[in-house]
Amino acid sequence: MDTTGLERNAANHAPLTPLVFIRRAAEVHGDRTAIVYGNVRRNWRETWARVRRLASALRRRGIEPGDTVAALLPNTPEMIELHFAVPLAGAVLNALNTRLDANSIRYMLEHAEARVLLVDREFAPLADEAIRGCGQSLLVVDVADASFGGEPAASATVDYETLLADGNERFDGVPIADEWDAICLNYTSGTTGRPKGVVYHHRGAYLNAVSNILEWDLPRHPVYLWTLPLFHCNGWCFPWTIAARAGVNVCMRRVDAEKALALIAEHRVTHYCGAPIVHKLLASAPASCRAHISHRVHAMVAGAAPPAALLAEMSRMGFELRHVYGLTEVYGPAAVCEPQLEWDGLDPDELARLNARQGVRYHLQDAVDVVDPETMAPVPADGETIGEVVFRGNIVMKGYLKNPGATADAFAGGWFRTGDLAVKHPDGYLKVKDRSKDIIISGGENISSIEVEDVLSLHPAVLMAAVVACPDAHWGETPGAFVELLPGASVSAEELRDHCRLHLAGFKLPRRFEFGELPKTSTGKVQKTVLREKIKAVHAIDV
Amino acid sequence: MDTTGLERNAANHAPLTPLVFIRRAAEVHGDRTAIVYGNVRRNWRETWARVRRLASALRRRGIEPGDTVAALLPNTPEMIELHFAVPLAGAVLNALNTRLDANSIRYMLEHAEARVLLVDREFAPLADEAIRGCGQSLLVVDVADASFGGEPAASATVDYETLLADGNERFDGVPIADEWDAICLNYTSGTTGRPKGVVYHHRGAYLNAVSNILEWDLPRHPVYLWTLPLFHCNGWCFPWTIAARAGVNVCMRRVDAEKALALIAEHRVTHYCGAPIVHKLLASAPASCRAHISHRVHAMVAGAAPPAALLAEMSRMGFELRHVYGLTEVYGPAAVCEPQLEWDGLDPDELARLNARQGVRYHLQDAVDVVDPETMAPVPADGETIGEVVFRGNIVMKGYLKNPGATADAFAGGWFRTGDLAVKHPDGYLKVKDRSKDIIISGGENISSIEVEDVLSLHPAVLMAAVVACPDAHWGETPGAFVELLPGASVSAEELRDHCRLHLAGFKLPRRFEFGELPKTSTGKVQKTVLREKIKAVHAIDV
Repeated sequence: MDTTGLERNAANHAPLTPLVFIRRAAEVHGDRTAIVYGNVRRNWRETWARVRRLASALRRRGIEPGDTVAALLPNTPEMIELHFAVPLAGAVLNALNTRLDANSIRYMLEHAEARVLLVDREFAPLADEAIRGCGQSLLVVDVADASFGGEPAASATVDYETLLADGNERFDGVPIADEWDAICLNYTSGTTGRPKGVVYHHRGAYLNAVSNILEWDLPRHPVYLWTLPLFHCNGWCFPWTIAARAGVNVCMRRVDAEKALALIAEHRVTHYCGAPIVHKLLASAPASCRAHISHRVHAMVAGAAPPAALLAEMSRMGFELRHVYGLTEVYGPAAVCEPQLEWDGLDPDELARLNARQGVRYHLQDAVDVVDPETMAPVPADGETIGEVVFRGNIVMKGYLKNPGATADAFAGGWFRTGDLAVKHPDGYLKVKDRSKDIIISGGENISSIEVEDVLSLHPAVLMAAVVACPDAHWGETPGAFVELLPGASVSAEELRDHCRLHLAGFKLPRRFEFGELPKTSTGKVQKTVLREKIKAVHAIDV
Repeated sequence: MDTTGLERNAANHAPLTPLVFIRRAAEVHGDRTAIVYGNVRRNWRETWARVRRLASALRRRGIEPGDTVAALLPNTPEMIELHFAVPLAGAVLNALNTRLDANSIRYMLEHAEARVLLVDREFAPLADEAIRGCGQSLLVVDVADASFGGEPAASATVDYETLLADGNERFDGVPIADEWDAICLNYTSGTTGRPKGVVYHHRGAYLNAVSNILEWDLPRHPVYLWTLPLFHCNGWCFPWTIAARAGVNVCMRRVDAEKALALIAEHRVTHYCGAPIVHKLLASAPASCRAHISHRVHAMVAGAAPPAALLAEMSRMGFELRHVYGLTEVYGPAAVCEPQLEWDGLDPDELARLNARQGVRYHLQDAVDVVDPETMAPVPADGETIGEVVFRGNIVMKGYLKNPGATADAFAGGWFRTGDLAVKHPDGYLKVKDRSKDIIISGGENISSIEVEDVLSLHPAVLMAAVVACPDAHWGETPGAFVELLPGASVSAEELRDHCRLHLAGFKLPRRFEFGELPKTSTGKVQKTVLREKIKAVHAIDV
């Protein structure tokens, strides 16, 4: 085909960016509520005007395209605004995990060469400590929340509303040169080594925001509750998803089951996301907290497979749980356990078994597969052969910031390598078995630590469980279980072992149990390296 | 930001193409029905296998990336398959309007340098005539439809199923080098001059397919009835939309109101599209035809504003009508009259007035505006100032094939110029008033021919109306109306004039009326040039 005159031009090509979503929400649904927080109510027109002001103010303070703007904020309205204002200024948003220590924060600020840090007062001492000795000059912005109080960071030189007032609410934004340009930077906590800076681009943020809509059949004007931290993969791209649907962001500083249920009832929340523990907390709250919820609520769960008991309990509450799977490197969720028609009417245990799988690729992700890590050949769909989960497509990071070696490793073989081990079932659905380094090898048999943890989680007294390898003179390794119970619950090691026996082969039963709060990373992942150290040192209950 | 190691690679970048939609439908929802036609039922796995076979067979017959594959087909299953198989072979689909004459078809085949022509037997004589004297050698493929019968084209050398059987159902397709590559070619019929070949790219087809989902809040597994010709802007991109939702394509050779209503009842059709005349025919069918439809049906209308009477009648039927607006150059619909919450409960006439507007930009289109055609400055949103409708974004054609001059004109000023005249209302919704060349200037006043046509269409006896300028010694021009009545209906010129008087200012009233079938282009547009010639020559009823 002769392509003369068929080139890209200003009329027929525009970079894909989630900024178009807020523009359209403001233009077409400007009067509709965008933000609900305490007494704050703002519609999409007002939110867009504030976003434009903030972007303009950042430019006036010298922020250049490609600069990093960091934030230490809970899920308050300002955090939503930043997801639009920072890219509108051409800059890159680095939402920092508020559970980190000062040294980690300092490392990230330096590594990202951040120019601005926005700080909620709850984290003012943390920010001040992190900034002390920080190698670059930073504009520190105090973000006050009337519902929290507190003192501004000593290092803050301007407050958020003053900064905003400096901006122009007609600012059109820095034109995006290329949809491949960075929009966000998210550090993985990792369980070992230095955090890695995962860089997202505008194209991926746009496409995953739309994918979220397709996964959930998300209609216009959803009411979305912010239980999922926005510093987690940018809230799985949901700030942009909710703008694309001109929905309502119901903000929350901190996840509290009673408060969350009250907000769900009051605002008729239709959707929320979270790790299994969030859903478990809501399901475990006193029934009286749910008395005013009569509408259907859709929930997305990731981070671990939802146990049968949780699925059943949520279903009784009128909550529909969708299991998704992903990692920071793939913008949060990038696979989904998409329900099939023929699953209707299955018994709850069978349904839970099916729903516990990580499933198939997200709508706008090109591919997910399970491959032999050496040959990169797909494993057979036999539900038995273990391989590595790999992703390919537009919902995969640009790479790790200033770490070409780790980037090359992550993309070796033409796929993004997750390091997660899985099998593929005959229906094509994948089921994660373990992280490569977490698998337990006992008498030559592989034991999936996740499988044992899932069984432990089924027990009504258990909030979370972690299983690691214990050195064993005879078997090489045996499973050891660390168990955190629900508040007020109690159970003995013997009872738990009996419970496991109902679901697991003998060689998979934990030989040791220890009870107590589990050590977690700042993103809530259990630190199995800490547990492995502990298992050698502490008093464990052998059974 | 240091971008070392953050380049595109095989793992993190894939061209946007609607082919991913059918791949996912086959993989995740392979058992679900994809095609319903007469006794034919095929699921997505089967459909994908046939598509792969056909693509492979085209390659084996020498079709190279960028070659044009033309089709003269009604809305049969093969036409759906071609929308995937042709791009999978790396080629460009040119769906020809089956209502064209042989000379036009020959011109298009030659201009597009088509290598293959697929022909339904109904159009075999047309194809044979078009091919006679055609400047290039063509592989002509006979497409037999058991429900139609007929003889194959004399020029056909292979039939569709034999061709398909030659292919490999494991064919992976020709890799798409660039999402900007052409996927389809659609000739505009135009009302004057040579047809222009509008070229679509993979990126735009993908994005408009998703936009259709967002506009309609289209959930998984819709049942879609093919009332809209697939040769019209590739059925407004709906073949790809329905694959993306793993829905059902209910095919239909020809739009027949009773048949359409029977199919809607039988298959519980949830969605369909068409020009106002299609909806009017369904609404005018005997009530007995609709007796078995108890579910909600969503309909999209474009081509002209839906009159109040039609909206009201459809609503009584349980059909919800969404008004969209577009042109071939913007992949079909690219603006939508998106309903607002506060419209609920308005009286039907007011609601119809609001819904008759062309509205706001499609979800994934970057911008639509009304501008001064000289300065390109947006007109004020006063509902009065007339300007030209312009579009910008990814849902705009690559350009006109082998016509850089027309392409440059269409994109002059950094927008795609529609040639449609409109006003912008205070709420930002645009309302098309006329084509530039159709406006009537009477005694110095502008009269929108569309406005007068809309009023005529309100009359229960009127199927369609066209209003053109009649030369007038005193006024310069006055409106003349050509009216096509519903079958069996009758009305006098005086009655129509009285009807117009209820809705229009005196100077806008048609001075002449003529009754009869309206001359239409092959795409169903009224040929106003023909009417203008006629108005001087024929006996018109002056009133």
